Amino acid sequence: MKNNNSIPTITAFKSSPDRGRGLARDFRVRWALEEVGQSYNVQLETFEELKKPPYLALQPFGQIPAYKENDLVLFESGAIIFHIAEKHSGLLPAEENARARAIAWMFCALNTVEMPVVEFSTFFFFEKDKSWYNDRLPLAEERIHSMLKKLSTQLGSSDWLEGDFSAGDLLMVTVLRRLESSGVLKSYQNICGYIFRAEARPAYQRAFAAQLAV
Amino acid sequence: MKNNNSIPTITAFKSSPDRGRGLARDFRVRWALEEVGQSYNVQLETFEELKKPPYLALQPFGQIPAYKENDLVLFESGAIIFHIAEKHSGLLPAEENARARAIAWMFCALNTVEMPVVEFSTFFFFEKDKSWYNDRLPLAEERIHSMLKKLSTQLGSSDWLEGDFSAGDLLMVTVLRRLESSGVLKSYQNICGYIFRAEARPAYQRAFAAQLAV
Repeated sequence: MKNNNSIPTITAFKSSPDRGRGLARDFRVRWALEEVGQSYNVQLETFEELKKPPYLALQPFGQIPAYKENDLVLFESGAIIFHIAEKHSGLLPAEENARARAIAWMFCALNTVEMPVVEFSTFFFFEKDKSWYNDRLPLAEERIHSMLKKLSTQLGSSDWLEGDFSAGDLLMVTVLRRLESSGVLKSYQNICGYIFRAEARPAYQRAFAAQLAV
Repeated sequence: MKNNNSIPTITAFKSSPDRGRGLARDFRVRWALEEVGQSYNVQLETFEELKKPPYLALQPFGQIPAYKENDLVLFESGAIIFHIAEKHSGLLPAEENARARAIAWMFCALNTVEMPVVEFSTFFFFEKDKSWYNDRLPLAEERIHSMLKKLSTQLGSSDWLEGDFSAGDLLMVTVLRRLESSGVLKSYQNICGYIFRAEARPAYQRAFAAQLAV
């Protein structure tokens, strides 16, 4: 790894639990950096290292990614991407109200949308062998569809959430992709098209290839 | 309600589901506005109105609060508070790196912390009568304590998360308060003290009285 202080460093899994499907949160930051054309270094970490004091000093919850840039250390993918969007053009609109709206979509992706997505996907992937799984599944499905229906209505036939592609779309797509293998997205054609459009972006593809190479 | 365009308007429940305990998300925004000394108008909404097109045009997920200021409409409490923090001093540090860190704590409160908090509190309050409740409770408790332990370690004996009180603390405290009546916080004395310090702030108390008056 080069020691060039002007190039930021992000942390990523040495061996990602999703086996290269780009669902770990370093992918969001890689994609944002590719969108603005900023090169970066990667510091790979094992699961064991994430739990130890040196890493916890960078990231208090032992999660991926942390971000280092000169004497600034940041954590939370949303905050890192906001920092990148403030330093470079291309991720947030310049006009004041449009910028505030795009930031609202960033928070929406990470709160209103990611809360039920993580709850559902955790249940779907990690509680399948539990005694309560079949009884509780209808409730879990009701909750995720309640959110997806509203998101689908809001998206309508637009290419992106509001105006041009923004950091709000980048975060929203990475959050929604966590549902892909569960099958719940298949009844929302416009959401599937939205994810597909995002995945076709050259910056997305460069970021995907970079995380897969690890 | 006055029609003064320079004063923002927020939406709130006509009849809050928490009966005035300040757990609805309009409280966060009221508190932020009180911290910076900005007066505001309140537009009260019934549950029925939240599901209808006029309200969904303000807030696509039919949630409380939405925020109106001249021709800007915002949603997501995090985004509204960030907008207030950019317009006024008092919620984010001026120094660049400290500001980026405080923004990281805002995202942390609304993502890393609020995800398990909402999952746990929804389970605790709304699934108590379900057949799976007792069997699943240990797993739900393990998840919430895993996060709380790390937060408690990070907080240590500090008054606030990092340096002076910031929008990161404001959001973190409102998120943590959702756990108060579940009893899971009682083993984290420093977190309880942190919430207590926040609740003692004059701006908190003014905001609390204002939402209670409704």
